[in-house]
Amino acid sequence: MSATTRWTVTGMTCGHCVSAVDEEVRRLDGVTDVEIDLATGTVSVTSVEPVAADTMAEAVTEAGYDLVP
Amino acid sequence: MSATTRWTVTGMTCGHCVSAVDEEVRRLDGVTDVEIDLATGTVSVTSVEPVAADTMAEAVTEAGYDLVP
Repeated sequence: MSATTRWTVTGMTCGHCVSAVDEEVRRLDGVTDVEIDLATGTVSVTSVEPVAADTMAEAVTEAGYDLVP
Repeated sequence: MSATTRWTVTGMTCGHCVSAVDEEVRRLDGVTDVEIDLATGTVSVTSVEPVAADTMAEAVTEAGYDLVP
């Protein structure tokens, strides 16, 4: 199987923010693609298995932003 | 969040098979959309939370087909 999970991240204001989140999320196990829409804060994560909410929250926090629960 | 999980189902040979799988999977809690490609056997399930493999297997079996683990 494969999965795309879509999340909302707050606090991103520019391309550098997008890069920081992209970099952290891409490091997660099994993640094959990350797409981020700055205007809406939507982060779409494609992975072998669905990424868990706590794993995602940790990565987003590590990048310096907040995951909407 | 929302999620799209993609699965492979074997045994579907026509539009009636597709309808049967669509109907069973659409009944699952939190599922908002189901898209099925008969040629490849790919079933894409959009849901509030990612659908678990055992839940999906049960629905596909109930429809009379097999989920590739």
